[in-house]
Amino acid sequence: MLKNILDNRDEYQPGLSIDCVIFGFHENQLKVLLVKTKHPDKWALPGGFVPINEDIDQAAVSVLHARTGLKGIFLRQFYTFGAVKRNENHFSNRVLNFGGILSEEGKWYFSRFVTVGYYALVDLMQTIPQPEGKNEIVEWIDHNVVPDLILDHKEILDKALETLRMELNLMPVGYNLLPEKFTIPELQKLYETILGRKLDRRNFLRKITAIGILTKLDEKKSNVAHKAPNLYSFDRDKYNEVVRNGLHQGW
Amino acid sequence: MLKNILDNRDEYQPGLSIDCVIFGFHENQLKVLLVKTKHPDKWALPGGFVPINEDIDQAAVSVLHARTGLKGIFLRQFYTFGAVKRNENHFSNRVLNFGGILSEEGKWYFSRFVTVGYYALVDLMQTIPQPEGKNEIVEWIDHNVVPDLILDHKEILDKALETLRMELNLMPVGYNLLPEKFTIPELQKLYETILGRKLDRRNFLRKITAIGILTKLDEKKSNVAHKAPNLYSFDRDKYNEVVRNGLHQGW
Repeated sequence: MLKNILDNRDEYQPGLSIDCVIFGFHENQLKVLLVKTKHPDKWALPGGFVPINEDIDQAAVSVLHARTGLKGIFLRQFYTFGAVKRNENHFSNRVLNFGGILSEEGKWYFSRFVTVGYYALVDLMQTIPQPEGKNEIVEWIDHNVVPDLILDHKEILDKALETLRMELNLMPVGYNLLPEKFTIPELQKLYETILGRKLDRRNFLRKITAIGILTKLDEKKSNVAHKAPNLYSFDRDKYNEVVRNGLHQGW
Repeated sequence: MLKNILDNRDEYQPGLSIDCVIFGFHENQLKVLLVKTKHPDKWALPGGFVPINEDIDQAAVSVLHARTGLKGIFLRQFYTFGAVKRNENHFSNRVLNFGGILSEEGKWYFSRFVTVGYYALVDLMQTIPQPEGKNEIVEWIDHNVVPDLILDHKEILDKALETLRMELNLMPVGYNLLPEKFTIPELQKLYETILGRKLDRRNFLRKITAIGILTKLDEKKSNVAHKAPNLYSFDRDKYNEVVRNGLHQGW
């Protein structure tokens, strides 16, 4: 795969890459999609290069598909990482493989790559990864126990999580991640998992209700021991309206 | 300047540029810093290329300084623009200057450039632009009457303004843009100018007071005809705290 790209490097934007941070939510866990390659034997965000004839936003979707088999994921661009030294270690660790002398391919590959970061939050069960390369492993890993990542991928991951948390203050989250009918405690748990902290039950109820995106159903959750909690669903029209206009009509 | 870069193109990141959207506020006007060059005879955002030995964030500061003489401006990265066709028109209009046959310089210059957008909001009077090149004009132009811009610079400008408006929902704005002592109507006017719409006086007062960043002074505005309005200043500690933590402690 890499050899193929190096041989056809004129067909790729020089010095530019894409990295995708895909958060998956399932059963109250926030996970991150990571890829492990043999060389180097380390975990990384799914990423790749940008064909010269492809918009970067489209390239991000293609890269994600090629590395993980995932399709139809709406990716949001969140930041571009361009420190001079961002792939320097990668360089010094691997230049030996090239016998110390850099070919034209080597120069291309080891130059500073500026990488555009994209992220998404998806329902993990709807998006089963299937690695294309047989030397690759693709796995959902709990964001609390992410192993060492190559390059500055940990920094990219942290920035994506920070962006996702900020987004909770700008728009509602939950559609596609929860079952069609859910309880307020289930919704609260989603927010707590993303934010990484406990929330006050009453405050959460008051704030989430004030947004006006919930429809209280005439049903209660069954199979629960004590007082059965009410079921809710999202009012899709209002939900979409708030996504468009932002949570805080603000000023 | 461009010739110098083309001659030394190996010292620049290929296919990557920086564009800066500098908003200036003064006397209730929101202006944008634009540069006019002779070739083409059109307005543009101040921008430039990225030296291979410079972080992109630093390159943005250097580019802004080189094009406008402005120093010490805190730039925020907001989006990266990478459509395949983003500099295609530029290409077809100018390739004739190269006699239709592209030299190595031409290939470098006319390839797709991905551009990283940065923006800032500054006090216009504190930041007097001084163009470096004598063929350039640098001017503050009211954002409501921006002329035709090259390439996709209008799209970049619109996205920056959208980001700035969203930022009003995330953090306070005003320090450095207003005099040390100001009235609530003056602060409201700043918000109205950025948002491009009128705000309700009572709602604004209630919301801005609730943030807890204002200190009511024991002074009134002098030189006003009717009821003299109270003067306020920002409580810098609280202001910085809210900038750090965000407006809405949220969830």
